[in-house]
Amino acid sequence: MNRCYADYAATAPMLDSVREAIAPWLFDYGNPSSLHEEGRRARHAIDQARDAVAEAMDCAFGEIVFTSSGTEAVNLAILGSAIANQDPRRRRVVIGAADHHAALRTLPCLEMLGYLVDLTPVLPTTQTDLAAFEALMSDDVLLVSLLHANNETGVIQPVPELVTIARRLGALVHLDAVQTFGRWAWTPSQFDADLVSVSSHKIGGPKGIGALFVRAGTKIKPIMVGGGQERELRSGTENVAGIVGFGRAVAARSDRSDPRRSARDAFLATLEAAKDPRLRLTADPRTLPVLDGHLHVRFEGLSAESLLILLDRLGVAASSGAACSAGSVEPSHVLLAAGFSPSAAREGLRFSFGPDHDEAFGVEVARRVLQAVERVGAAKPARAAGS
Amino acid sequence: MNRCYADYAATAPMLDSVREAIAPWLFDYGNPSSLHEEGRRARHAIDQARDAVAEAMDCAFGEIVFTSSGTEAVNLAILGSAIANQDPRRRRVVIGAADHHAALRTLPCLEMLGYLVDLTPVLPTTQTDLAAFEALMSDDVLLVSLLHANNETGVIQPVPELVTIARRLGALVHLDAVQTFGRWAWTPSQFDADLVSVSSHKIGGPKGIGALFVRAGTKIKPIMVGGGQERELRSGTENVAGIVGFGRAVAARSDRSDPRRSARDAFLATLEAAKDPRLRLTADPRTLPVLDGHLHVRFEGLSAESLLILLDRLGVAASSGAACSAGSVEPSHVLLAAGFSPSAAREGLRFSFGPDHDEAFGVEVARRVLQAVERVGAAKPARAAGS
Repeated sequence: MNRCYADYAATAPMLDSVREAIAPWLFDYGNPSSLHEEGRRARHAIDQARDAVAEAMDCAFGEIVFTSSGTEAVNLAILGSAIANQDPRRRRVVIGAADHHAALRTLPCLEMLGYLVDLTPVLPTTQTDLAAFEALMSDDVLLVSLLHANNETGVIQPVPELVTIARRLGALVHLDAVQTFGRWAWTPSQFDADLVSVSSHKIGGPKGIGALFVRAGTKIKPIMVGGGQERELRSGTENVAGIVGFGRAVAARSDRSDPRRSARDAFLATLEAAKDPRLRLTADPRTLPVLDGHLHVRFEGLSAESLLILLDRLGVAASSGAACSAGSVEPSHVLLAAGFSPSAAREGLRFSFGPDHDEAFGVEVARRVLQAVERVGAAKPARAAGS
Repeated sequence: MNRCYADYAATAPMLDSVREAIAPWLFDYGNPSSLHEEGRRARHAIDQARDAVAEAMDCAFGEIVFTSSGTEAVNLAILGSAIANQDPRRRRVVIGAADHHAALRTLPCLEMLGYLVDLTPVLPTTQTDLAAFEALMSDDVLLVSLLHANNETGVIQPVPELVTIARRLGALVHLDAVQTFGRWAWTPSQFDADLVSVSSHKIGGPKGIGALFVRAGTKIKPIMVGGGQERELRSGTENVAGIVGFGRAVAARSDRSDPRRSARDAFLATLEAAKDPRLRLTADPRTLPVLDGHLHVRFEGLSAESLLILLDRLGVAASSGAACSAGSVEPSHVLLAAGFSPSAAREGLRFSFGPDHDEAFGVEVARRVLQAVERVGAAKPARAAGS
């Protein structure tokens, strides 16, 4: 049976054009910091990629810092601001309770730096609780870190509203846009964000590359020091091939029509048509702002782990929450933050479609999901008590 | 005129076998943290690469942490130990004064963490001053960071002697082995090192990958947090292709005979045969332990910058000091630490040969260097005063 990869939020296949762009850099090899011809050629390739990313972000060339991942960009944004802005009047940092661990796990380090960290509560849909956010905010907050779209549920956050509140109180704003960059036309300035983290491999670029938009004039310090690459903001010899591939992926995105929404919609319609009373949508994409290719569901009483193992055997690659926490049977921190019980938080299934998918693909994935649900559900009663 | 790339210490061309190993990972794309088939395939590829690195280091699989660069490995080793070991009786860190900036520039961060940093002096040859090191050391030192071979001069440090002193006083030992890993058969345990930083692109692997050996039981905390990859020590989706390529480069090194020494020796002999009274060897490889393919020279009174620009036009890629600081006309911090005057510290030329080079290559590079010296030297008197 052919494989159905419905885990684009975890990582996407590399685009053909990206492979073509990378190929020469498996042969050419200069160190971009070298002054000689070989070095200058590599520098030029990096500059071109930076141009592509800057163009997509509608920002200046010098506002893009390449990193080794979205995670590093998020760490740099949060910790780099915290280190650079040691203002005794601003000793708090606010992070979304359902944000990615790349943001949440900076907490001990922020505390070590003397900051108090508050987590913004989310509603049961994993949307940010705007009223609670406003109540949390005051003029002692240095930085607010926002997740543009939740990587598990796909819910798009009310960024403009959140930024307006943050700005009124003079806080810096970091936007983790790993799931949304390259997906539609938006820019950091449109959101009035100071810092925006993005990643390459979610949009068909290579793994091992990300970038941070740093608005000109924003005070930030590096978290990785050494040779002073990336205008002293990120040391280490540049991953030239990775950067070139990222640049190409970014450039490619803008002119792709993207049918992933129809795959998702057909998937949802097929699931619902089966009228399984256990089906629960965490965030209904028909009534809430959700990423086009994303659907997060639960089948009440059925563990995500059992379903995913069977789905994998049935040829479907999907996930429970973030790929990063895989291997663990921990309940999703996103669902816990949204008020789910630990057992419900172990039931979350994330399906994320890609630009190569269509309605038929969505229907086929749903068909296999229903098959898996039937089998796991049937096996369930026998071992319900202990599970 | 054909190009002569004599800057292998900056970066090396990718090996054919590495390109072959990487190729499938431009098509296969699973996230190694995903539990499904695509993810497990990627995980398996990473595991194999980790095996190759562990085998080369004669250490356990679990003692290797992949990073995005040698620089990140050095940062993780130094800052990760400093964060994890907050022992009030050990509040000092000792770093070599001529070490790479990846180590030296952790200083402000170490101070922020409450550590006192001392720099180990070096002799005019850039060898560590053993007596001075011993005088610096006491039982309040948490960590000693050593550079296995200086990246500018190629001088191999007396690591066993340094470690013996450090160990006697109970300090942790970090070895920055970016220039020596894969160059000859040595292992972390042979040096009794707790932490060893290595890099991929110096030995024909891809850029954007490094690794840190962390001896089992060593207390260390991550400097990049998030999904908890690399056993919680280094978060961020793994650069699968990069890791696979690194693994292959490491495996390839062990069975390569390496003629770079004859290239270097022929280069030196040809330079000396010209009897230019301005020629100075920073560390004579005939009497000092110096990396096989490395030669660091000065032509007294001639700036490295002028010579390198002309050499580049003559088809020779070489460098002044670390590639990382390129673009800058700053004097080399290595030579300053070795007691050179600022103007002499602007004269350093690093030639570093590779495994594909031979005697004839060394002679040819020397011939062009002498040509450049003659031209720059001839132009010199006219503008000597102001230069």
